[in-house]
Formats: sequence, C-alpha cells, structure tokens
Amino acid sequence: MNNSTSRRRFLQQLGLFTGAMAASPFMASTASGLVIPTNLGGGAQYVPTGASPIGPMTTYPSRPAGSKYMGGFRAPKLDVVRVAFIGCGKRGHSHVPRMLLVPGVEIVAMSDLFEEHAKDCADKVTKATGKTPAVYFGGEQEYVKMLTEIKPDAVVVAPSWEWHARITCDCMKYGAHTLVEVPMAVSIKELWAIVDHSEKYQKHCMQLENVNYGREELMYLNMVRQGVIGELLHGEAAYIHDLRSEMHEEELVDGTGSWRTYHYAQRNGNVYTTHGLGPVAQYMSLARGEDNFGRMTSFSSPARGRAKYAKENWPADHKWNKLNYECGDINTSIIKTTMGRTIMLQWDETSPRPYSRHNLIQGTLGTLAGFPNRVAGEKLGDGNFHSWIQGEEFEAIFEKYDHPLYKRVVEHIGGADALRKAGHGGMDYTMFFRAIECLRKGEAMDQNVYEGAFWCSCSELSEKSVVQGGMPQMFPDFTRGDWKTTKPLGIIS
Amino acid sequence: MNNSTSRRRFLQQLGLFTGAMAASPFMASTASGLVIPTNLGGGAQYVPTGASPIGPMTTYPSRPAGSKYMGGFRAPKLDVVRVAFIGCGKRGHSHVPRMLLVPGVEIVAMSDLFEEHAKDCADKVTKATGKTPAVYFGGEQEYVKMLTEIKPDAVVVAPSWEWHARITCDCMKYGAHTLVEVPMAVSIKELWAIVDHSEKYQKHCMQLENVNYGREELMYLNMVRQGVIGELLHGEAAYIHDLRSEMHEEELVDGTGSWRTYHYAQRNGNVYTTHGLGPVAQYMSLARGEDNFGRMTSFSSPARGRAKYAKENWPADHKWNKLNYECGDINTSIIKTTMGRTIMLQWDETSPRPYSRHNLIQGTLGTLAGFPNRVAGEKLGDGNFHSWIQGEEFEAIFEKYDHPLYKRVVEHIGGADALRKAGHGGMDYTMFFRAIECLRKGEAMDQNVYEGAFWCSCSELSEKSVVQGGMPQMFPDFTRGDWKTTKPLGIIS
Repeated sequence: MNNSTSRRRFLQQLGLFTGAMAASPFMASTASGLVIPTNLGGGAQYVPTGASPIGPMTTYPSRPAGSKYMGGFRAPKLDVVRVAFIGCGKRGHSHVPRMLLVPGVEIVAMSDLFEEHAKDCADKVTKATGKTPAVYFGGEQEYVKMLTEIKPDAVVVAPSWEWHARITCDCMKYGAHTLVEVPMAVSIKELWAIVDHSEKYQKHCMQLENVNYGREELMYLNMVRQGVIGELLHGEAAYIHDLRSEMHEEELVDGTGSWRTYHYAQRNGNVYTTHGLGPVAQYMSLARGEDNFGRMTSFSSPARGRAKYAKENWPADHKWNKLNYECGDINTSIIKTTMGRTIMLQWDETSPRPYSRHNLIQGTLGTLAGFPNRVAGEKLGDGNFHSWIQGEEFEAIFEKYDHPLYKRVVEHIGGADALRKAGHGGMDYTMFFRAIECLRKGEAMDQNVYEGAFWCSCSELSEKSVVQGGMPQMFPDFTRGDWKTTKPLGIIS
Repeated sequence: MNNSTSRRRFLQQLGLFTGAMAASPFMASTASGLVIPTNLGGGAQYVPTGASPIGPMTTYPSRPAGSKYMGGFRAPKLDVVRVAFIGCGKRGHSHVPRMLLVPGVEIVAMSDLFEEHAKDCADKVTKATGKTPAVYFGGEQEYVKMLTEIKPDAVVVAPSWEWHARITCDCMKYGAHTLVEVPMAVSIKELWAIVDHSEKYQKHCMQLENVNYGREELMYLNMVRQGVIGELLHGEAAYIHDLRSEMHEEELVDGTGSWRTYHYAQRNGNVYTTHGLGPVAQYMSLARGEDNFGRMTSFSSPARGRAKYAKENWPADHKWNKLNYECGDINTSIIKTTMGRTIMLQWDETSPRPYSRHNLIQGTLGTLAGFPNRVAGEKLGDGNFHSWIQGEEFEAIFEKYDHPLYKRVVEHIGGADALRKAGHGGMDYTMFFRAIECLRKGEAMDQNVYEGAFWCSCSELSEKSVVQGGMPQMFPDFTRGDWKTTKPLGIIS
C-alpha cells in the first residue's frame, strides 16, 4: 500500500474522511478544513489566550516635580574621578586594590564604623599612590560628614545590606554618583527611595553587579546582540553557593559578624537575586526599550540547612541556635516578561552543593549556558545543535566571540592571567574599569538605577509570593512607564 | 584589638549595646535577647508563615459504592500473563520484541486501526514463538471485540494520545489489567474516568513511565532510600527533546501522521510531563504515604519554533502552515508538595537544543543529578561536596549504588550491553520485566493508577496556570484522601 492510500485508509478508519467527521467525538474540522483532534487535553485550550502581554504595574506614585527620568542619563564628563568608599569591611577591602588599578581615579576618602577597617583601606591607597585619603569612622553619621566635607564625585557603597539604601540615598543627596554593592536595597520601599533620589538629584546610581562583567557573561551578551541564537525566548539564572561557613565570621579577628544570617533566618524567598539575574536581564534588554519585567511567582523548599549547621557547630545556647530559620534552603522562581519570555531564577546559599551561577539564555536558533560553559545552535560550530560545544571545543567560541570590552581590559591590565587575579576572576576589575570610564566620558552607565531596582525587587516579590503560596506578584514599574524610551545596552567596543 | 573587644565596639558604634538599642531604626531585640536587624527586606517577613503544609484539594467526587481504593492493590497471581496490544504503530512495534524476552508472557492478540500494523506485530510474535496471536483491525470498536473474545490478562495500550483514556477504561471494564503509554490521558476529566474504572473493576492501571526504569534513575531511587542525601528538599525534572522532525512522519510509508503536532498547536503548557517528573515523584514518595502533590504554577515562553519549522519545510498552503501554534516553545513550572518540597518541571520539544532529561534530587546531605550524571554530598566520595563526582569517577558510584533490580535484569538478559539495546537504553525492557513480574507474583505495581494520574494531571494544571498568568493550581486528589495509607515504593530487590 502506498503512502497516500495508507493515509486515506487511516483517516477513513477514524471516520474522518467524508461526512462521518461530525460523528467522531474525538475530531473536528476547522473553517480552513483542517482535521484536528478535539480531546486535546485540559480544558485550557478552549480559552483564547492570544498573545496577551504581561507588563509591570501601570500604577505607580507620580514623579515629584523637578525630578527627571534617569534612563540613558549622561552626567558631565570628569577628567579624574574622585572616589570615596563607605563600608571598608571584607568587600570594601577587596575593592580598593582593583580601584587603584583603574585609570583616572583618585581615592579621596574612606569611611567605616570601625576605625581599623577605614585605616587599613586608607593605608593600601597610601602605599600604592603616596597620597593618604581622608578617614572617617566611629559614628553612624560620619559618612555624611565625609560626603559634605570631601565632596567625592563617586562613592563605592559596601556596608552590610541594611545600610545600602540609606547611604546610597545620602550619597546622591550630597552630590555624588553612587556605585552600590548588591543588593542595592532589601525592600521595594527602599528601592523607590533610591530611584526618587537619583531622579531628584540627577546622580547615577549603578548597582555593582559584577557578574555582568564576567568573561562568559559578556561574551554571551555579545553573541546575543549579534543574533547568534535568534529571538530570545527563555533564560535561567541561579546563585548556588554554600555560604554556611560565613556564620563563623564573627569569631575571626576584624570580622563584623555574619549579619547575613539574620536575613536567612527571618526572610523566606530569594534573598540574593542579582548575580544570576543581572546578565540574563541584560541579554533580554529588560527595562530598556524592548522588554520589561512583568510578573513573578516563587516557591521555597523547606528550611533545614541553617538550623542543622548551627546545631552541628555551636552549643545549644549559642545565638545561632536561638534563631528560627524560616528561609527555605533553595528558592525557585519564574519571571514572566512583558513580551512573554520566561526566566527561571534560583537561589541557594545553604545546601551542600557545588558552586554554580547557572546561567542560560535560549533563543529560536540556539542556547548559551554556563556552569559548565556550553553552547549549541544552528549558527554555532557545524550547526549540529544536538550536542553541546563544550570543554576544549569551547576555546573556539571564546576566540570568535569574546566581548570587545573583555579584550580591551585584558590588554589594559597586561594579559588574561593578570585579569583573572583582579577580583572574582576579573569581573570586579572590569566592572570598576567600565564604571569609571562611563563617568569620565560622560556616558550612560551600563546598569542604570532602574535595572538595579528591578533586579533587587525580585527579593521582596519572591517573599510575598512564597507567603501567598505561589501567587504571582506584579513588578512595580520603577521607570513610571518610561522604560520604553531607553535604548538596550549595546556592544561596548 | 582582640575579637571580643572588636565585636563590642562594633555593637557600640551601631548603638546596640546598652540602652541605645531602641533608638536605632535598623535593629531591635527579641524576647530572647537576640539583636536582629529590623529592615531585613520586603515586608513579607512580617507575615507569620509557620510551616503551613499545602496539600491537594480536599474536595473531590465521592467514591461510588462498590469501588475500592487501589493504592497497594494486589491482584491474584498469574502463572503466565496473556498479553494483548492495542495500538501497533511506532511505539507498539518497538514494544513487541521487548515483551517477547520477558519470562512468563504469552502474546495473544494484536489490535490496530491499520491491518498492516497489527499483522506486522503479529508476525514478529510468530517468528519468535511459532504461535500466531489473534489479529484485530479496521474499525474503532475492534479492540473491544478483541477484549471480549480473547480476554487477555493484561493489555499494552499504545495508540495516539487521544485514544489512551477511552481504551484504558474499556480494558479494565472488560477484565484486563492495563499498561498504558504516557501520557495516560490528556485531561483531568479523563484521568478521573481511569481512576474510577480501576477502582470499580479492581484492575491495575500502570502508566508505562519507562524513565523510572533507567539505570541512573533506579540508582538514585536506591540512594535516596538508603538516606545518602538525607531529607529530600527539592527536585528538578525536564524533558527537552527536539521532536520537530516528527512533523515529517506523515510523509513516510506506514506513518500514522504527526498527531502530536495538533497538541503543540492548540494547547499551551507542559504537554508531556511524566518522563522528567516520574522518577522525582517516586524519590519523594508523592501520593504514597509520605508526601503528595500540592499545587503548581506554570509559565510558557513565546511560541516560535513550530511555526518557523513549518515555514522552512513546507509550502505556504500546507496544513502545517495553517495551524496557529499556541504552545510556548519551552514551559517551566514549579510544583509545591504537601510537605513543602519544590519541583521545577520543564518541557521543550521544539527548540534547537541538545537532548536532556534533566533530573535532579537535592537533600540536606547532597544532590544527585543527570544529564550529565553527577553527584555530590557529605556522604559521597571523600565528602567534599564542593565539586561534582562525574565523568570517569562516576563509575565508582554505579559500582556502589546500582539498583538491585537493574543488576538482576542485566543478569537475566545476559549483560549490560544486551540490556542497553533493549529499548531506550534498556529502560523499556526493565519496565516490562518488572510489570509482568508484579502480575505473576500478585504484587502491587511499582506505579499505581494514582501516581499516573497525578503525574499526567500536571498537563492540564499547567495549561490552566499559563492561561491565568501563572496562578497556582491545586492538584485534585485522585486518591480521595487515601494516599496516606499507601506505602512508599521500596527498594525492589
């Protein structure tokens, strides 16, 4: 029997071929004459879905008179950027040597609650440059005194999370651009305050999301912009990093204590969203003209790891054994964008798992992923997307697609090995190099204040969704509808 | 400065050490005297979450009089199992040679709409055994005739998806245990019909989820049952398999056409849930005493791949170019269980991506994952969970933890190589070997009718959630509350 005969007989047997069609409860014909099964499943197919876009909330507090939208904002050029640090603890300490390598920077002040932290950081500057920055310490308002007396052009804000929003707002109020550590703030209320201060005082507020400057993340941005994987459809982003050992930190000399532990204890959601999310959000140009955050749903696993670790490491009457650890060990969320794209977002700083910043971007022509690095697509390699290009073969991808910024920074610092030593594999240095370059050239920052706000707002939204049993949460529109006017981040050459 | 002095000074500077505590807006003390930051984020932390369990719906249609709960059901022993096939297409064809190898089976009948399909399968049996099974073909009711005339003990049901529920119900009605291909049914209404028929006629209905019998999946079940990764917290399950080429199938001789394409076109959700989900659900003993499915939320990416593929491969007036492809290329869902565990579930049969049945189970002591195979945990290898045991090192894991059933089947079939050739790397054969063994010994099936129903219900729930913008959907309780009485699947020795 040939194919067409076989096909006709099959349809006849199903009662589909002539007048018998209407008699079958399992099939129906459409206006176009197509034969389609009618018991295709769940009832949901009877609801017309259309291409209903889901955007951020269209209601928001109105922008105060005199304030201006900061998407694409360019500040006056600075020949030399006078930089101060607020927060000279573990992270601040690691930033100073990177900043010392950046061209066009003068480090003018150090501020910390601890005298020794501020002085240690100042000493590093003195040793490297011969110039000693002003040092402020000892009281909660000392950083304000520093801001008014020193008037830095830009401030690196790196204290514990609870202080980020307050200090960031004050920096802008007193005239400085702000480079603030992740997370920029811990609540949506605080994020609105930062946005409002940036718009009122017309100062940059860039969140220091270093992962956006990782070699692979930059390269994937480059590939996405070149259309290598076609239209973007889906992303994945995670921060999986066992940080339980930080609970020991208060026992070390100079430690400021594991203040993160209180967050793990008393919140339940994705408490640290941006390392995974930042790069994926920029691939998709979220909050920049093309697309934006729409809604988000979130679930946490049971909370076990922190209490277990406390019990195993401290006596019963230790403070770590008195906390009620509410935060699920692993949180999994899904974000839906205005254009209907999806992002799976995960966070786990508690489980005995290997480190991963699982990073994935999927388009109509292929997929780029991290941890381990692997890519596959119709335009990649020999076009056989049924297996990953990975391992040794991945070198050819670096060779072809390394981001121009990465190559420029490698050249500047004196080689890939030197860069690898410059903070988290070089991403810290690349971040400062580029932030200062933008300030000196009077360019828009790579990460604007709204992107920082959207990325961080996932924490509160996840907490609310978790508490409500996974109810979708709408993103607040920190741009007040203006995101459509902001250009996507291009390939920085 | 020593540590305790340093710590005291830090607290003094924060105004936390004595009477100044109440003055700080950022910190507060608890009844137990703990000092905690108060601006810990999103507002959600003010809502007491407790350990609120989320279970399946507690309302359901009452069980008809005379029907009995089938969890743990054991049918009378069968010395030889008389097996019939309904649906002798591509999948049916591949099942026959596996079933011929299983001890204690007599294949007694073949039924299909196509004469040549039924006869081809019958010929295989004749060649292998010398006995020719009865052959039924040509009409929609022929399989019912077969059931009443032949009275098989068990039927393998493998027609196109739309027929699964109807045929499965009829098999049980006419006295046969049913081994039905995935998905068991395409709607919750159909799943209830199957459950009701199983309970009324006291016949097994096992969904043929072959992936539960994969070597790695069996081994992970073994490891989980041995407590290797502690208390289970989170799972991940995916079916990522580019099946666009199936759209060409109607052009092949003997092809019955790509009926799946209509599902891709007209539904939007996770249309094929069980390959990824089945193993994870059994690790967690969902619907078996310990835990159960609670709720689920789901999002689909934009739908691009099917329309693109149709346009690239067929003329504009071809039927594949007349469908409106509604189904997002990749669907991502999250399931929350009664005990609060989470499962991330994905499905993509449309994108140019390498094949993956991403499979992950995470516990308090470690994580087991697939694609590629990798494990890490406090009780694995040297206990350094900061890197995966994978690649060549993984052989030691197989050696130590291979499931007893896997080892027994390898021995029976004559080696691991022989097993690998027995359907999808051996999982098809292992599945039939074990299903027939249960029927012969009068044991409960490894996958009961409720497990099949829960796993498949994710399709309709995902479709509903997608259409409702990610609203969580409660699982129906197919067990009518009786799942708490059913024992978890043990380690089959």
